[in-house]
Amino acid sequence: MSGSTEGLELRSTATADGRLRLTLEPVALGEPGPDEVIVRLEAAPINPSDLGLLLGPADMATLRAEGTADRPELVADIPPHLLRAVAGRLGQSLAVGNEGAGTVVQAGENVRDLLGRKVAMVGGGMFAQYRKIHARACIPLPEGASAADGAGMFVNPLTALGFVETMKAEGHTAIVHTAAASNLGQMLNRICQADGIALVNIVRSEAQAAILKGIGARYVIDSGAEDFQARLVEAIAETGATIGFDAIGGGKLASHILNAMEAAALRKAGSYSIYGNNSAKQVYIYGALDTGPTVLNRAFGLSWGLGGWLLTNFLQKIGPDAARLRQRVADELHTTFASHYSTVIGLAEALRPEIVTAYQKKATGEKYLIDPTR
Amino acid sequence: MSGSTEGLELRSTATADGRLRLTLEPVALGEPGPDEVIVRLEAAPINPSDLGLLLGPADMATLRAEGTADRPELVADIPPHLLRAVAGRLGQSLAVGNEGAGTVVQAGENVRDLLGRKVAMVGGGMFAQYRKIHARACIPLPEGASAADGAGMFVNPLTALGFVETMKAEGHTAIVHTAAASNLGQMLNRICQADGIALVNIVRSEAQAAILKGIGARYVIDSGAEDFQARLVEAIAETGATIGFDAIGGGKLASHILNAMEAAALRKAGSYSIYGNNSAKQVYIYGALDTGPTVLNRAFGLSWGLGGWLLTNFLQKIGPDAARLRQRVADELHTTFASHYSTVIGLAEALRPEIVTAYQKKATGEKYLIDPTR
Repeated sequence: MSGSTEGLELRSTATADGRLRLTLEPVALGEPGPDEVIVRLEAAPINPSDLGLLLGPADMATLRAEGTADRPELVADIPPHLLRAVAGRLGQSLAVGNEGAGTVVQAGENVRDLLGRKVAMVGGGMFAQYRKIHARACIPLPEGASAADGAGMFVNPLTALGFVETMKAEGHTAIVHTAAASNLGQMLNRICQADGIALVNIVRSEAQAAILKGIGARYVIDSGAEDFQARLVEAIAETGATIGFDAIGGGKLASHILNAMEAAALRKAGSYSIYGNNSAKQVYIYGALDTGPTVLNRAFGLSWGLGGWLLTNFLQKIGPDAARLRQRVADELHTTFASHYSTVIGLAEALRPEIVTAYQKKATGEKYLIDPTR
Repeated sequence: MSGSTEGLELRSTATADGRLRLTLEPVALGEPGPDEVIVRLEAAPINPSDLGLLLGPADMATLRAEGTADRPELVADIPPHLLRAVAGRLGQSLAVGNEGAGTVVQAGENVRDLLGRKVAMVGGGMFAQYRKIHARACIPLPEGASAADGAGMFVNPLTALGFVETMKAEGHTAIVHTAAASNLGQMLNRICQADGIALVNIVRSEAQAAILKGIGARYVIDSGAEDFQARLVEAIAETGATIGFDAIGGGKLASHILNAMEAAALRKAGSYSIYGNNSAKQVYIYGALDTGPTVLNRAFGLSWGLGGWLLTNFLQKIGPDAARLRQRVADELHTTFASHYSTVIGLAEALRPEIVTAYQKKATGEKYLIDPTR
């Protein structure tokens, strides 16, 4: 191929008049630099972490198709009181898609060996036909792996491994995880089983509980059950979990976890202290399935922490040690880190109202993959 | 004096039938061990941090005097729904009072040099006529200092210094503080002015603002003002404060601080990120002036932390380095760390309903000192 590579990119634009617009923009990629490659995208998962940028705070009830058959557009309204939340992106045409995989079709002079290889990539802008990217952000896929196999090699696997690394770095020995039947949650179960780490899974339905029990999870608790808090205390007391990772964010779940950790610690406590038990208790919020306020009933003393957890911050903190994690993902791509996609769509389909409605639900067991070659 | 030292101790007892009872118990102290001393208490401040143990969650509207003139008692009701919060202390007669000062009246064989010295102490049970304690928990007062001067040498001074140490240890350069006109808040202003650290003071009235401006505070913001959030963003942007210490705990104040830190950071930010600005933002809750739920409107991205801050945990973490902080307190006892008491009461008076009503209000400018020799 020559330097004339041109392709469509999915773009998301929020405007001051309260519209969110998804479009497919033709982009000329130009020549790759000496350390860059141009990759033809063949698979890119729609992760929960993509949806915030893709759809912003738009009202899903107002989704409508506009544009033409050749150049489809999707439009939705942003409620006026939520416009402030996207002030930083108004008027900007933003590329979307954290990760993907495909075939290297052009390569700079220093990275010619990658030409023709299938690679996985991380770095944004992956909902596109082509992506120009630094070779450092690519991992050649192992022999026999398809683009779909490698498309989700970064976000979920490194997040799940990041939870375990964070647990160890901060001196904890067992984990509580919410929204635990997700693709990520299932990976975390496989990692913890392999590594002998106790994991308390919190789910929101019996169907989700069944999924996890089916893959061998030992502690699975339904937050909708009447005896939820009592069972949570029991599981935490048994496992000694003093760190939690919460995908939900809003509501009282983080508070329930901290209070259960405190109650479990007090069972073993000696003398009474007005300041609560002095064991460290930590919950990290890494998602926002509920964007409402986080409400803490602080009956858990003064030895506690709540915070945000973001993969890019974690990777920055561990630095070169990330290579070890990436290698494990590559080694266990078809086992621990296997992703299952329920539906494969083309780039234009990602703009169809009924399909957007389906994938933005983030329903357990439903995971969408974009194949831009369709 | 012989081994027959006996004195009254203030005790707080919560019972399963929903009563909180304050009593004065006669206690025989026994001989001090080889490294122990017996101190006659002459001054012990009633700090906000004492009130939780002293009064628990009792309903202040139900305070009533019982007992006899010789052995007064104070009784109050604990609302049934709050009994669970004190499950760990039910039926226990608990000594109260974190710190105090007085004269050494007996000393073990290894610490005879302390006999007759005035010392300050930390370690609980200071609302008493006598306290037997390890010599290590005592600091001899500098020449010319009274027991009242030294009575508050530990909790507030080390907490204020602890905030500054925590700020430095975690890589921040300026501080936000709430309930900032308190005795502790005034100390923090004096420390920050001496050390050249920018401090954003949040207060809840214009009268409190006036106190702080009177001692030279530069950034003072009234959380009741209509433009509170805008002024907070402005002050944080100017000072670069990315760590806050919150005495209030309940409500939305911690959330307002984190959101103001995010807004200030976004002013300087480059490109838009759905995950918010990646500068670290931290708020520690160290008090509970509002025991209601903490409510977080998470518009501050994913680079944030909220947690409990407790002096004893901090001192444990810094270990022997605490000696440096204690020395500074002793050196600046009459300046930076001077405490002012509005009212001095005896031990029995601390049980009088109208006096309890007054000191439990924690009103700015009112600080009570117990003198058990009265």
